[in-house]
Amino acid sequence: MNDFSSRLLETAVSELSRLPGIGKKTALRLALHILKEDESYAENLGKAIIKMRNEIKFCTKCNNISDSQICEICANNKRDENTVCVVEDIRDVLAIEKTSQFNGLYHVLGGIINPIEGIGPNDINVGHLVKRVNTEEINEIILALPATVEGDTTNYYIYKLIKNFDIKVTSIAKGVAIGDELEYADEITLGRSIINRLPFSEIS
Amino acid sequence: MNDFSSRLLETAVSELSRLPGIGKKTALRLALHILKEDESYAENLGKAIIKMRNEIKFCTKCNNISDSQICEICANNKRDENTVCVVEDIRDVLAIEKTSQFNGLYHVLGGIINPIEGIGPNDINVGHLVKRVNTEEINEIILALPATVEGDTTNYYIYKLIKNFDIKVTSIAKGVAIGDELEYADEITLGRSIINRLPFSEIS
Repeated sequence: MNDFSSRLLETAVSELSRLPGIGKKTALRLALHILKEDESYAENLGKAIIKMRNEIKFCTKCNNISDSQICEICANNKRDENTVCVVEDIRDVLAIEKTSQFNGLYHVLGGIINPIEGIGPNDINVGHLVKRVNTEEINEIILALPATVEGDTTNYYIYKLIKNFDIKVTSIAKGVAIGDELEYADEITLGRSIINRLPFSEIS
Repeated sequence: MNDFSSRLLETAVSELSRLPGIGKKTALRLALHILKEDESYAENLGKAIIKMRNEIKFCTKCNNISDSQICEICANNKRDENTVCVVEDIRDVLAIEKTSQFNGLYHVLGGIINPIEGIGPNDINVGHLVKRVNTEEINEIILALPATVEGDTTNYYIYKLIKNFDIKVTSIAKGVAIGDELEYADEITLGRSIINRLPFSEIS
């Protein structure tokens, strides 16, 4: 006898437990929940997963996830085509869109350089960025990668590739988070926010 | 524009976030993971979920999850048919099976009496238990429900229904967990384990 007295359940649990952060126990809990719900839920969930994977496209311009060849952001002619924000993945696009503070286009790298995980410059969407810089009328590239060693490495790599073009290259500000007490900010962040201090009038 | 720049992604995230303990952010992480994996994974996962929900059966004897009319435990003639262990759901069957200390059959209630959540005696598989007591040759019913107020209520309800049959009714032991220091055991558990003390020779 297998562990679950049902091979159908066992298969579902084993597939669910391949998801990140879902262990065997959680997978079993999810499977039993699906069994308790209406049949239509399992149907909708299963089909949504398969359909998404089979039919989703990546925007040929910015590599954002999209239902069509060009994503809704790139296709929106109200957005500023001259400013391109470089991000690691689509979650960063969602996070920046939520702030409503950016009206330009994006460039989704799909990863950052990480030698430990074996991710080199060729594994991320950086060649295509250089092509965009060459062919599109871009005035400013905003680097919005994670504030980590890997993010800094990738920033520097991209900067070297595009510094000879007549383009302003900027990076998102790093410093004390809004609402933070200074004494609880880590010293590197606090140090950076002193070095990168701004004239008072510019602070909103 | 919708939040996700892709309706396919949005649908998958919304279906995933209906799973217990999975919020919108986790659902997005899972969906992006599925997108990064091979197409066959999404296919396998989706189909396993749908197939499980559509084809799984409940054992007509004990209500355990099963791929056939009678589950593998009930169908196993090496097991002791005269002892039936009453549990809340299939996870408890798995937990008890793992101990290798029980060789009887099960009866899965599919829930316990919980007035706050609107679960009454008619919502759980208790009528069928009485029928089994009537028709099968059961010598002992082991109540293995959660050690909570709801578990105790359900225990008592079942006890009242079957006490007039010539059947031994027992309950799993509650007490200090193996490996626990006494000072860290809660006082109710420790109190119970003193009241229900056993002759030294019986302790294994």
